[in-house]
Amino acid sequence: MDITGWQSQLRKGAAELVVLSLLQGGERYGLDILDSAGGSGGVLSDGTLYPLLTRLEREAKVEARWAMADDAKIPRKYYRLTAEGEALVAQMQRAWHEFSAFVTGAIEEAQDGRKTAPAGRTIPALAD
Amino acid sequence: MDITGWQSQLRKGAAELVVLSLLQGGERYGLDILDSAGGSGGVLSDGTLYPLLTRLEREAKVEARWAMADDAKIPRKYYRLTAEGEALVAQMQRAWHEFSAFVTGAIEEAQDGRKTAPAGRTIPALAD
Repeated sequence: MDITGWQSQLRKGAAELVVLSLLQGGERYGLDILDSAGGSGGVLSDGTLYPLLTRLEREAKVEARWAMADDAKIPRKYYRLTAEGEALVAQMQRAWHEFSAFVTGAIEEAQDGRKTAPAGRTIPALAD
Repeated sequence: MDITGWQSQLRKGAAELVVLSLLQGGERYGLDILDSAGGSGGVLSDGTLYPLLTRLEREAKVEARWAMADDAKIPRKYYRLTAEGEALVAQMQRAWHEFSAFVTGAIEEAQDGRKTAPAGRTIPALAD
C-alpha cells in the first residue's frame, strides 16, 4: 500500500518548523538549508524550499539579503529570522513536542494494549 | 502569532495514523476512539473522527459492525482493522518514527548549533 501522499502531508506541515529552526543558528542560504533539511527522511526538496522561503519572507517571519562569503564564488541570498520569526519558531517547537509526544504515545499505548489485552474478548453482535 | 492553522495541518496528517494505531488493540467504537485521540493535545475532534472513519471504511482499511456490549444501553458501531489496515498501520508507524526523529533532530541540532556558533560571524553584504 502506498503511503507517499500521507508522508507528503506530514512533511509539508513540518517543513516550515524545520526551516525556521535551522535559522535559529544564524543566517543561512537556500542550498545550505536544503543540505540539512532535504535528503533521505527529510522534509524538503528544492521544489518545496524556495516557495516556502518566499512565503516566509512575505509573511515577515524571515528576512533576506544578498551577500558574498569569503569562500564563495558567487553571491548568495541569506535568510535569517525576524523578531517575529524568533517568537514563532519557539511557539511551534513547543507545539511540535506536545504533538509528537501525543502521536508517539498513542502508538505505544496501542502496542502495549495489544500485548496485554485479554485474548478472545468479544462483544456480541446484534441479533438480526 | 497564531499557529492554529499550522497545528491543524499537522493533526490532520496524524489523525489516520493514531486511529489505525488505536485499533491495533482490538475493535473499538467511535466515542471510545475519541476519548483516546481527542482532547487536549489530541489530534481529533468529533467533527473530524466520523468523516475519517467513514473514509477508512470506504478504503477498506477498517471494517465495522453494530454490536451491543454487556454494559451498554445502546448498540454501537465497532470498528476494527482489516488485514490491509494492519499492514498499512505498521508501515505508517515506521514512517512516523523516521519522520518525527528527523524533525526533532533538526530542532535539537539547530539549538545546539546556536549554543556553540562562534559569536559575531558575519558575511559581508554585497557592495552597492
